[in-house]
Amino acid sequence: MLVMTPGPIAVDHRVIAAMNRPAITHQSRAFGEVLDHVLAMLKDLFRTTSWVTVLPGSGRLGLEAALVSVVERGDRTVHLVNGTFASWAVEIARRAGAEPTVVEGPWGGPVDLRAVAQAVERVRPKVVAMVHSETSTGARYDLQEVAEICRRHDALFLVDVISSVGCMPFAMDAWEVDLAVCTSNKGLGSLIGLSLVAVSPRAYEAMDRRRTVCQSYALDLKRWKDQFFGKPFPRAYPVVPSTHLVYALQEACRQVLEEGLEARWARHARHAEATRRAVEAAGLELFPRRDLAGNCVTAVRVPEGLDEGEIVRGMEDQGVLISGSMAGPTKGKLFRLSHQGVQASEEMLIPTLAALERTLRGLGYRVAPGTMVAAFEEALAEA
Amino acid sequence: MLVMTPGPIAVDHRVIAAMNRPAITHQSRAFGEVLDHVLAMLKDLFRTTSWVTVLPGSGRLGLEAALVSVVERGDRTVHLVNGTFASWAVEIARRAGAEPTVVEGPWGGPVDLRAVAQAVERVRPKVVAMVHSETSTGARYDLQEVAEICRRHDALFLVDVISSVGCMPFAMDAWEVDLAVCTSNKGLGSLIGLSLVAVSPRAYEAMDRRRTVCQSYALDLKRWKDQFFGKPFPRAYPVVPSTHLVYALQEACRQVLEEGLEARWARHARHAEATRRAVEAAGLELFPRRDLAGNCVTAVRVPEGLDEGEIVRGMEDQGVLISGSMAGPTKGKLFRLSHQGVQASEEMLIPTLAALERTLRGLGYRVAPGTMVAAFEEALAEA
Repeated sequence: MLVMTPGPIAVDHRVIAAMNRPAITHQSRAFGEVLDHVLAMLKDLFRTTSWVTVLPGSGRLGLEAALVSVVERGDRTVHLVNGTFASWAVEIARRAGAEPTVVEGPWGGPVDLRAVAQAVERVRPKVVAMVHSETSTGARYDLQEVAEICRRHDALFLVDVISSVGCMPFAMDAWEVDLAVCTSNKGLGSLIGLSLVAVSPRAYEAMDRRRTVCQSYALDLKRWKDQFFGKPFPRAYPVVPSTHLVYALQEACRQVLEEGLEARWARHARHAEATRRAVEAAGLELFPRRDLAGNCVTAVRVPEGLDEGEIVRGMEDQGVLISGSMAGPTKGKLFRLSHQGVQASEEMLIPTLAALERTLRGLGYRVAPGTMVAAFEEALAEA
Repeated sequence: MLVMTPGPIAVDHRVIAAMNRPAITHQSRAFGEVLDHVLAMLKDLFRTTSWVTVLPGSGRLGLEAALVSVVERGDRTVHLVNGTFASWAVEIARRAGAEPTVVEGPWGGPVDLRAVAQAVERVRPKVVAMVHSETSTGARYDLQEVAEICRRHDALFLVDVISSVGCMPFAMDAWEVDLAVCTSNKGLGSLIGLSLVAVSPRAYEAMDRRRTVCQSYALDLKRWKDQFFGKPFPRAYPVVPSTHLVYALQEACRQVLEEGLEARWARHARHAEATRRAVEAAGLELFPRRDLAGNCVTAVRVPEGLDEGEIVRGMEDQGVLISGSMAGPTKGKLFRLSHQGVQASEEMLIPTLAALERTLRGLGYRVAPGTMVAAFEEALAEA
C-alpha cells in the first residue's frame, strides 16, 4: 500500500528501524543524551536559538499547549482562518476562556492583510494565530507581513508549522515567530506521536507575566524552561514523551540534515510543481489559488459529476491511500495527494499519478493514458 | 543495562518488534481494525463493558484528560493523598479552576477512611480521586470502600490505575470506578507514550450534563464517545495517538491475555513477596507499611548512614537502573525496585538483588554475600 496521505505520511525504513532498541528510562543519562541531540537538531531545523519542547501528542495537542501556556481567561486572540486547521486554534482559544476574533478568508484563498491589521489594531490581542501550510486546502501563507503587524501591536505570533518545517522555508527567529507548533510526522518525516513546540524568549516572558497559573498542568510549556532545559541529569520531565518515538525522530532529523535543509526545500518545491503540472495536464483544477499552492500537499477540486469518496476509494482499490476533504466549507469538494518527506519522490509520485489516471478513467473522467505521468516527468526534467 | 525502574519498565522484545512495520494513516481501515482490537482487549483488561480511550501521552496527560473532562470551574473535588502521584491530581484540579479538598495521610501509610467519608459528606464533591498503586511509595490501596462512599454521596470515582492494570486485581465495573486512568507502559508492559482512560456510563452522563464546555479541546473525552466509538470508517479522531505505539500496545495486550490476567496477577504477587523477603533478609526496611506493600514496586527505606543517590548510582555502575525517591515528603528517604511485566521474573530480579547486595556492601552496609538472592529463591520455592 502506497501511503500518500498528508499525515501520517509514509516514513523511511531507517526511521522505523531506529526504534528497534530495548526500552529505557527517560530519566537515564543514555536517553537524556539522545533527547538533547534531538533538541539541538530541532533548533537547527526551526532556525531558532530558543528552546523546542517535545511533548507526547499530535499537532492538535501541541497547538493547545502553545495557546494555553500564554493565554489567560478573558485574553483576546486574533485568528487568520482560511482552512480547517486554523479553525482548531479558535476552538482551543474559546475553550480556554479567551475571546477569539476570527478574520476569515476564502478557503484556499488569500489572507486579507488589511483586515488582519485592522482587527489587530482594534482588538489589541495577546496572540495572533495562523497556519503556515494549510493541509486542508493545500495553500501556504507568507508569515512575515503578519509578523510585522504583531510586532507593531506587541502581540505574540503563534504559527502552526505542522507540515511546513522540513518541507518549506521557515526561519523562526528571523521571521519573528513566538510560538511555532509542529509534529514529528509530516514535514520532518518521523512517526506520528510527538508535538514539537518552539517558544521565543518573548513568549516565555509572557508566560512569566501571567496573572494566573496556566489552566493545564501537563501542557504548561513554562515548566519546561523552569524545570528541564539546560538542567543537569537527572531532570524532571514536565510530561514524558515516548522514548521510542524520540529515537525515530532522532533518525528522521539526521536524515533531514544529511540531505540539507535547503536541498530538501528545493526537492519539495520541484516535486510539488511537477505534481501540479500533472494535475493540470489532466484538465483538473487545483483547489487553492495557484500562486498560493504549497509544496506539502496538492489539493485538487473534484471534477464536475464525480464524487470525492469514489475517487478516494478507487485509489485505495489501486493500492494508493490518499485523502479527501476535511469537515467544513471544503467538504466533498477536493481530494489531496501529499508529497512530504519520502513521498516527494518519483518512486512514490509516479505510481500515484498513474493510479489516479486509472481511477478517474474508471469513473468516466476523460484523460488519455499517460497524460499525468508524462506531464510530471516533463516538469521534473525542466526543473 | 537491566532496566528495573518503575516506569518506563523494560518490555518484551516482541513488543518492540511489533513496531517494525511501515507507517500507515490512522484513518485507514487497516489501522482502525488494529485499534479496535486493542480497544476490545483493553475492555477485558480493565474488566469493563464501557469504552477505553487511547490518547497520546503519559499518565499525567491521561489524568488531566479524565479530570478536565468532568470538572468545571468552581466544582469541588476530594483527593486522597498518600504519595506524589496523588498530589498531581490536586494540582491538575486546581489549575482547572476546581476547589480541591485534600485528605492527606502518611506517605506509604494507610488511607483514613473515616476522614474521607467526613470530607465527602461535608464537601459534596463532583469527583473523588485516589491512586490504586502509588508508585512513589510502593503502597497499594483498596478501592471498594471509597467507591461505596462515592456512591452514597453521588460523586464520581476517579482512580489512577497507572501501574496496577495488568499487575494487580482491578475490576472497573464491579468496583464501580467511573474514570480509570492508565498508561501503555508499566503494568500493561508496552512502551511509554499512550494514555488509556476508561470512562463509565455515569461519567459520560456527567460530561453530558456540564453547564460549560470542557476547557480542553484535545483532552475532552466526551468527544471520543460522540465522534469515534462505534462509528463507521473513516472515523474522526478527537486527537490522534501514535500508530506505532498502538502496534506495540496490541502485542503487549496479546501477551497479557496469553498469560491470563489472573495468572499474571499471581506471578506479580509471588515475585513481589519474594523481593520483599529478600530485602528484609538483608535487614532493610520496606518504605510502606508491610500490609500495604504493593506488587508493582518495592520501595526500600535508605538505611541509616547511607545516601539514596549513592545507592542508585552504585546500581547503575553494576549495570542495573533503579529509581530513587520522587519530590515531596519521601525525598532522599527511599529507593525503588520495580517488578512489573517482564521485570517480575527470576531472570531480572536475581541479578538485580545480587547487584544490590554488592552495591550496599560497597557503601559499607553489612550484608553477607548471597543473603538476598537466597531469601528470594526460598520465598519463590515456597509460593
